[in-house]
Amino acid sequence: MTSLFNLHGKDIISVLDFDKELIEEIFSVAYIMEKYAKSIGPSLLKGKIMASLFFEPSTRTRLSFEAAMYRLGGNVIGFTSAEASSVAKGETLSDTIKTVENYCDCIVLRHPAEGAAKLAAEISNVPVINAGSGAQEHPTQALLDIYTIKRELGKVDGLEIGIVGDLKYGRTVHSLVYALSLFDVNLSFVSPPSLRLRDEIEEDLRKRGVKFKYYEDIEKITPNLDVIYVVRIQKERFPDPAEYLRVKGSYKITSSIISKAKPKCIILHPLPRVDEISLDVDSHPQAKYFIQTFYGLCIRMALLSMILADEEDLKQLFCNSG
Amino acid sequence: MTSLFNLHGKDIISVLDFDKELIEEIFSVAYIMEKYAKSIGPSLLKGKIMASLFFEPSTRTRLSFEAAMYRLGGNVIGFTSAEASSVAKGETLSDTIKTVENYCDCIVLRHPAEGAAKLAAEISNVPVINAGSGAQEHPTQALLDIYTIKRELGKVDGLEIGIVGDLKYGRTVHSLVYALSLFDVNLSFVSPPSLRLRDEIEEDLRKRGVKFKYYEDIEKITPNLDVIYVVRIQKERFPDPAEYLRVKGSYKITSSIISKAKPKCIILHPLPRVDEISLDVDSHPQAKYFIQTFYGLCIRMALLSMILADEEDLKQLFCNSG
Amino acid sequence: MTSLFNLHGKDIISVLDFDKELIEEIFSVAYIMEKYAKSIGPSLLKGKIMASLFFEPSTRTRLSFEAAMYRLGGNVIGFTSAEASSVAKGETLSDTIKTVENYCDCIVLRHPAEGAAKLAAEISNVPVINAGSGAQEHPTQALLDIYTIKRELGKVDGLEIGIVGDLKYGRTVHSLVYALSLFDVNLSFVSPPSLRLRDEIEEDLRKRGVKFKYYEDIEKITPNLDVIYVVRIQKERFPDPAEYLRVKGSYKITSSIISKAKPKCIILHPLPRVDEISLDVDSHPQAKYFIQTFYGLCIRMALLSMILADEEDLKQLFCNSG
Repeated sequence: MTSLFNLHGKDIISVLDFDKELIEEIFSVAYIMEKYAKSIGPSLLKGKIMASLFFEPSTRTRLSFEAAMYRLGGNVIGFTSAEASSVAKGETLSDTIKTVENYCDCIVLRHPAEGAAKLAAEISNVPVINAGSGAQEHPTQALLDIYTIKRELGKVDGLEIGIVGDLKYGRTVHSLVYALSLFDVNLSFVSPPSLRLRDEIEEDLRKRGVKFKYYEDIEKITPNLDVIYVVRIQKERFPDPAEYLRVKGSYKITSSIISKAKPKCIILHPLPRVDEISLDVDSHPQAKYFIQTFYGLCIRMALLSMILADEEDLKQLFCNSG
Repeated sequence: MTSLFNLHGKDIISVLDFDKELIEEIFSVAYIMEKYAKSIGPSLLKGKIMASLFFEPSTRTRLSFEAAMYRLGGNVIGFTSAEASSVAKGETLSDTIKTVENYCDCIVLRHPAEGAAKLAAEISNVPVINAGSGAQEHPTQALLDIYTIKRELGKVDGLEIGIVGDLKYGRTVHSLVYALSLFDVNLSFVSPPSLRLRDEIEEDLRKRGVKFKYYEDIEKITPNLDVIYVVRIQKERFPDPAEYLRVKGSYKITSSIISKAKPKCIILHPLPRVDEISLDVDSHPQAKYFIQTFYGLCIRMALLSMILADEEDLKQLFCNSG
Repeated sequence: MTSLFNLHGKDIISVLDFDKELIEEIFSVAYIMEKYAKSIGPSLLKGKIMASLFFEPSTRTRLSFEAAMYRLGGNVIGFTSAEASSVAKGETLSDTIKTVENYCDCIVLRHPAEGAAKLAAEISNVPVINAGSGAQEHPTQALLDIYTIKRELGKVDGLEIGIVGDLKYGRTVHSLVYALSLFDVNLSFVSPPSLRLRDEIEEDLRKRGVKFKYYEDIEKITPNLDVIYVVRIQKERFPDPAEYLRVKGSYKITSSIISKAKPKCIILHPLPRVDEISLDVDSHPQAKYFIQTFYGLCIRMALLSMILADEEDLKQLFCNSG
């Protein structure tokens, strides 16, 4: 119970700021939030305003943060693209933050630039939550990914987890592997050679003593996996389109792949998918990428209330849910 | 009273799903809503979230659905164009729906594709309301059109109703004529030959025993009409621009047309208008196209509360207004 | 107390509609609002809906109006660009207003056309607040500018106020000088000759007996000033880019300028800035352009509650705040 207030007034910038205990704490609150996520919540954030500043398009992250705020009784201001804001007139991110902090209780920021959320947090007097910045950081996605694993499989430690697709450029991959490094898991990285994990991340994983292996084909290792986490492979990443066409089939999840998987294996995807998972996979019980979006709402309700709610109200909620 | 809950948890996809009794029921609730539509409502939807997914621009439909939700104590998430969402990254409508249903209590969808709302309703676990899809369906517009007639003229049965303009491509026309086919009305379709009602709709009307005639000139039949419903004629529909310029005058409502109309005749338009109705018509008592937008808010408040509100609360409201 | 309700149900179109007494009244309410602007407010506008119609991009004005509404318990509908509305289909402003007034309790309008807000107010049955129209009017900006001066320097009368930059095209300049003409101030207009105040405004100021002088260089008069109000100089205003490059340095506020200013001099800017104020000025105590945005929220909370709140509730709030 003592760490329940560790996030009060804090920023959420990088998964590197988390330890396992805090993650478990967030998961406990998220679990309580599940029952409020589908109906009216406990008004923990009545009168609070979240500024939702999205400099890049988003469906899941933006809408689930906004829904989280409303389920908890709060309100939302913001913009969904830079064009409708003064950024169109040349305003810097820094000036936008120094302005918007005066209108709200917290800022949720998505931005294309590496380090944008960190910069915003340094400037802002209100808490900043990183909703994706640059190619590296998407911490709330990593939390919801692991929460989905825990809720669907009952645990995280001891699992065999495969991460499949573009491991070099995928924003969600980087945050996810760092977050998973806090758990005792075996990681299998499955990608074409040109899209392997970046060297600096590989090195970090080694230092942290994470167990991982590289593969180029999903099919062979499928029977071993408890979790298959699929990431989009973008055509634009290949200098030679022919090369793209050659490899993309090897990283597509199909019913045939599923037939080789453990019955309890779960398929996750940060979404949006384009064609990395066949539509016919959706009907398999292993397909968990849509309920994953629901867990995302619960994680965001947990984070917002841990950061913003009155401590007494939060303690009350926690005790009542005992 | 028994049918008051016929819509609870249901989708609103097509006017073909309605019968006259249900329409009358919706009108009764809309009438009660009129007194709340201009001020604070009865909090029937406190804590509920409507997802407002607009893949095409809209002023009236989107803003009135959102205002309806707020007047009833609810909240709104969503987007106003595909560009700000993951559709920009190639996500299918189906995946968007399977995601967004996890964040809300109902989905209001406008989409350019024929059958988009039907597809969404089949997929979604929460009710879907069609706010315009493809060229054929805009059921809530048809309901508000007929509600306006009823409120302004006291009845619908027995009226002479003229529908003027582009009857071939107009989304609101198709829904309106099917909805009117449930009433005992005489329809006059006034359009250039190239923009006449589609054959399949004409056939459907015949099967349903609807009384209708075709005209090419609004002026001659004006004196007979109780309702003149005006639809935009879009230049782009004419292969030959000269043909457009030749015909467009014949379908424009002017003060001169009004002078030939019955004193109690009403002029309706789904809006936006471009120049199908002269601005000087606005000051005539027959011009009802702006109050029509107010009735639209009432209809949408009625639908949202019939679909989403707690049955006891709704019954209470109904009895108190009895 | 008697004039507290002078704004009830009124439009805010031009600073020319204000007298000094009303401005002081608004400032009294804004001062009360300061304590609610950072947390939950007194629910003065529960159930009310503000339509936020922005035909041009905006960060500060739009987000602070929306935050003001939420802090007071109200809700917001609207659009952030013309593209997402029926304006994209050719609808006139007049038709948009006649529609939207049916969905809300007040309209906040930003529009590129001169006189747009005035037109909207003439048409609308609900109060219209001008959030910037054409090149001339931005009354709520002028109010917040002067409120910032009053709060930071304790008074407005008797001050030496410099306005620096593009005085010809700047929307905020015109509203500000007319509003300041109600006070006993000395104005210094600092600009390149081609961007001097428009003749008609100069003439108006003379008629009103305002004391003002022209300068071409900020540096020399800096030591005399209590307030330096900086406005952007846009490159596009110069037919000859070389001329722009030549002059722009003379109107840039730097630490070197600050070193010549009075210790209590305050630097204001309507924002967004591009490079009219060096970033290193931000850390000087004279830099007040970010707290200015906070005062903007308070002014907008004051205006919305004076226009929309129940008179008894407002009186109560005023009395309790003694």
